[in-house]
Amino acid sequence: MNVISREVQLASRPHGPPTAENFALVERALPALDEGQVLVRNLVMSVDPYMRGRMNDTPSYVPPFQLDQGMDGGAVGEVVESRSDALDVGDIVLHGLGWRDYAVGAAPGFRQVDPSAAPLSAYLGVLGMPGLTAYAGLLEVAAMKAGDVVFVSGAAGAVGGTAGQIAKLKGAARVIGSAGSAAKVEHVLGLGFDAAFDYKREPVRRQLRDAAPDGIDVYFDNVGGEHLEAAIGSLRPHGRVALCGAISAYNETSAPPGPRNLGLAIGKRLTLRGFIVNDHNHLRSVFADEVGAWVRAGRLRWEQTSVQGLENAPAAFIGLLRGENTGKMVVELSGGTS
Amino acid sequence: MNVISREVQLASRPHGPPTAENFALVERALPALDEGQVLVRNLVMSVDPYMRGRMNDTPSYVPPFQLDQGMDGGAVGEVVESRSDALDVGDIVLHGLGWRDYAVGAAPGFRQVDPSAAPLSAYLGVLGMPGLTAYAGLLEVAAMKAGDVVFVSGAAGAVGGTAGQIAKLKGAARVIGSAGSAAKVEHVLGLGFDAAFDYKREPVRRQLRDAAPDGIDVYFDNVGGEHLEAAIGSLRPHGRVALCGAISAYNETSAPPGPRNLGLAIGKRLTLRGFIVNDHNHLRSVFADEVGAWVRAGRLRWEQTSVQGLENAPAAFIGLLRGENTGKMVVELSGGTS
Repeated sequence: MNVISREVQLASRPHGPPTAENFALVERALPALDEGQVLVRNLVMSVDPYMRGRMNDTPSYVPPFQLDQGMDGGAVGEVVESRSDALDVGDIVLHGLGWRDYAVGAAPGFRQVDPSAAPLSAYLGVLGMPGLTAYAGLLEVAAMKAGDVVFVSGAAGAVGGTAGQIAKLKGAARVIGSAGSAAKVEHVLGLGFDAAFDYKREPVRRQLRDAAPDGIDVYFDNVGGEHLEAAIGSLRPHGRVALCGAISAYNETSAPPGPRNLGLAIGKRLTLRGFIVNDHNHLRSVFADEVGAWVRAGRLRWEQTSVQGLENAPAAFIGLLRGENTGKMVVELSGGTS
Repeated sequence: MNVISREVQLASRPHGPPTAENFALVERALPALDEGQVLVRNLVMSVDPYMRGRMNDTPSYVPPFQLDQGMDGGAVGEVVESRSDALDVGDIVLHGLGWRDYAVGAAPGFRQVDPSAAPLSAYLGVLGMPGLTAYAGLLEVAAMKAGDVVFVSGAAGAVGGTAGQIAKLKGAARVIGSAGSAAKVEHVLGLGFDAAFDYKREPVRRQLRDAAPDGIDVYFDNVGGEHLEAAIGSLRPHGRVALCGAISAYNETSAPPGPRNLGLAIGKRLTLRGFIVNDHNHLRSVFADEVGAWVRAGRLRWEQTSVQGLENAPAAFIGLLRGENTGKMVVELSGGTS
């Protein structure tokens, strides 16, 4: 097959919030497949907050995107050509070569998923990396247990919304969420959170204290900044914080202030633990079983915000960092030409 | 016995650094003993940084000192009268009724120690609460293991000096200490630390990077503030912080800035854990065996700064918060009149 594929490249590194100029949509003619490779037409791709860090040229747990190279990230597509016994044409696969119409690679880099079990985008959200992030962060990193009062920031996002619902399903006494608009607060309450507030309306500290007057036991942090400081203030003795993300800081050009009350961690014996989902792959099968069953039973809900077309993927990502999504932000792809 | 005992009372709560006016030395005639009680003449008492928090009227893990009441804290004394079968006159006991010439209480509040095994003040330091704090914080809270690079702040203090030596004895690859003067740095190096620096001389961040160019695995924090931020910057992936104290902030009247780089904890998967020694009493016997043996063998050294006389205990405490001690700060008591 002679395939022309479009890919989104990193044209320049953003200083502060990324803009359209940081991205370039480039056409490439793909080479013929080598033995063992497959060609996959992408159907849906993920944009995730962690990708902002990869736009900087600083060492981190995932290597930075390279200038004038295709970006990458989670995607689901259909095998359209195969030179591997492991995958057939028509198979639906999850893989890491998003931000492009077509992916080419060795078959082991592509994992087959069941398109009849859930919408494809679910494999990029509740059943995928964000879902496992929520599951591992809440249950392993923060060691949430039944009876805990749990606070989740960014609760209208893919990770936060899932984390809060898992907390309820695991017997949390009370789950509180924060989000960035009145509409999102409604969404979060619709997911079954016991309380939710709009962090833009009043100081987080006051709203959290109103929502959890006796304090919290677990804080699942997607936001950092003011949220983290408020949570430290509200945490009860032996409280735990899963440091998952700090989206409030991703576009900052200077170091944001740290929590001024971190000293409270001593007397309250708090544990703050940063994590990344890749360290928790040992949970993948129990996660798939448990969360898969909840989703099938309608006990764990998820929502997404879809943007159409690869050419709009940069805008989707920029919007994600602005909080324009409710639930998982994905980009549905129409495919290139072949 | 008719006993007149002097005690140090809290006369007023300090705002900022405590001053002599916050304390009052008051004489009291002690009542006759009840059945089961003992009368103990204090020989040496402890002043510890955590007592600064107890001078504030804020809830914490130990109740605040009450105004116009005797203060309390660790002390070692000699039983001079006993109405209990558990203790005899002449027994040497460790207890929590310092800041006074004589202590009266039920016998179970007094634990006999062996005056021939170590100088009495050692039971307030390396063999006592500060020693257990170092042991539990390093080995249990920070989960230090052989091969780790360990950084200890306040390394010339009772806890820090012990923590660093335990790290060496447990196989740390390299132990770095910070202290507040050139003389203290010499002391810390004399304890066997591989490197030490004077944090007042240059930014901690730079000195720590020079002392541990490849980073650290464990940070034992007695200081907070700039030290904690520098340590977060130097910690390697999966690094651990034992948050033991924040003496840099104890006399602050407004919230000090938090570590601006706490977001690094996510990608580096750091764990920061606050602790207080009282949660680690299950380690008491293994601590006593192991640290006792090291002390007897001369493999773990300790030093103290002694002040003479109960009337000088407030000055000793004020000096402790200013860093005027090397090693454990204690007050030797001459006893009252009886």
